Amino acid sequence: MVKQDRAARTRQSLIHAAAEVFAQEGFAPASLSTISRRAGVSNGALHFHFENKKALAQAVEDEAAKTVRRITDEGTDRGGCALQALVDTTHELMSGLADDIVIRAGFELGGDPARGAEPRLRREWQRWIEDMLRRAEAEGALAEGMSPHDASPAIVAVTVGLEVLGSKDRGWLSEETIAGFWDLMLPRLASRQKPVPVSSPPAGGPRRTVMPSAQATD
Amino acid sequence: MVKQDRAARTRQSLIHAAAEVFAQEGFAPASLSTISRRAGVSNGALHFHFENKKALAQAVEDEAAKTVRRITDEGTDRGGCALQALVDTTHELMSGLADDIVIRAGFELGGDPARGAEPRLRREWQRWIEDMLRRAEAEGALAEGMSPHDASPAIVAVTVGLEVLGSKDRGWLSEETIAGFWDLMLPRLASRQKPVPVSSPPAGGPRRTVMPSAQATD
Repeated sequence: MVKQDRAARTRQSLIHAAAEVFAQEGFAPASLSTISRRAGVSNGALHFHFENKKALAQAVEDEAAKTVRRITDEGTDRGGCALQALVDTTHELMSGLADDIVIRAGFELGGDPARGAEPRLRREWQRWIEDMLRRAEAEGALAEGMSPHDASPAIVAVTVGLEVLGSKDRGWLSEETIAGFWDLMLPRLASRQKPVPVSSPPAGGPRRTVMPSAQATD
Repeated sequence: MVKQDRAARTRQSLIHAAAEVFAQEGFAPASLSTISRRAGVSNGALHFHFENKKALAQAVEDEAAKTVRRITDEGTDRGGCALQALVDTTHELMSGLADDIVIRAGFELGGDPARGAEPRLRREWQRWIEDMLRRAEAEGALAEGMSPHDASPAIVAVTVGLEVLGSKDRGWLSEETIAGFWDLMLPRLASRQKPVPVSSPPAGGPRRTVMPSAQATD
C-alpha cells in the first residue's frame, strides 16, 4: 500500500515535471532525462511509468482534461442562469491556466504541430461553450436575434487567444482582462431582462490585476 | 542581372517551402533537407542563402512581418474613421492568414517555444490595435466610459485566438466569423452616433463562409 502510494506520487511528479518542460521548450526538444531530473527520479523510474515521450505528453493532456472537466462540470451543475455560469467558468478556467502548469501544458500540447495530435482540450472547451449557449437560449437569456451559433466562435476565440497569450505573460489571464472582455460582449449577447455580472465572485482573495499592453512590455 | 533574379527567386522559394514545413511540423522537427527538397533546390543552394534553420525561420518571420505591416499601414493611411479601419483591417489580416502560408507560419513561429523567440508579429499587431483605438478615442468614436485600455485586450485576444484555431481549420478565418465577432463587440465599443459596418467591403468576390463548430468536426 505504501509502495503504491509512492508509485502514484512518482507518477504525479513526472507529469508535473513533464508539463513544465513541455511548456517551456515545446514537445519536440523536451528530453526525457531533463524531465526525470526535474522530477527527482531516475530514468529507469520514468520508463517504468511511461513508455516514451508521447505517452508522457498523453498523460499530461489527460490530467489537464480531468481538471478542465471538473471546472466545466461545476459550471454545468450550478443552479441559476447559464450565461452567468458561462461567465464564471471562463474566470475559473483562466485562473486555472494562470496557476496550474499542467492545464497550461495540456492546452499547448494540443496545439503543438510537432506532436501531431488534435487540439483536444480546445475542442472540449468549445463544445462546452456551445452547450451553455444553447441552454442560455432555451432560458430566453440571449438577446433577440442572437443565436448560440452567432456567439460561440468569438467566445471560443477570445478564450483560446488569452490561453495562448497567457502562456508567455500571465497578465493576459487576469480577472481584469476576462471581466473587460465580458463587459464588451454581454450587452449585445444577453437579453435586457437579466443583468449578468461580468466578474466572478472573489474566491480566495483578489486576483492578478495587471493589464497586458504591448507598449508596456517593450 | 538574370543571375540576381534567379537568386532572389530561389530565396523566395526557400522561404515559402520553409513556411509550409514549419507550419506543418513545427520548428524543432523541421529538417533543412525536407525544406530544400520541397523548394526544388539543393542543400548547397539552401546553405548559400541561409546559414541555418534559425536564419530561415527569421526570414519567414521577416517576410510575414513585411506583409502584415503593409496590411496595417493601409489601414492606418485610409481616410475615414479609425474604428472602421480597425474592423476592415482585421478582415484583411484574417484573409491573409487564410491564404498566405508565410503569414501563418510567421505568427506561429513567434509562439513556438522550441524556437525561444519573442511573439513578434502578435506584439506588432497588438500595438497597432492599441494605436487605432487611441485614434478612435480622439475622434470621439468610442462609447462613453470605454477606453482603448479596456477594449484592446479582448480584440487582441480574439484575433490571436482565430489565428491559432485557423491554423488547424480555415473556417475560423472566414468573413462570417470575423463579422460575427464585431457584431458582438461594436455595440458596446462604439459611440451611438456613428454606425460602423461589421463586414469588410467585398474585394475579389465572396469569401469562405464555413462556420466552425466543435460538433461538426467530430
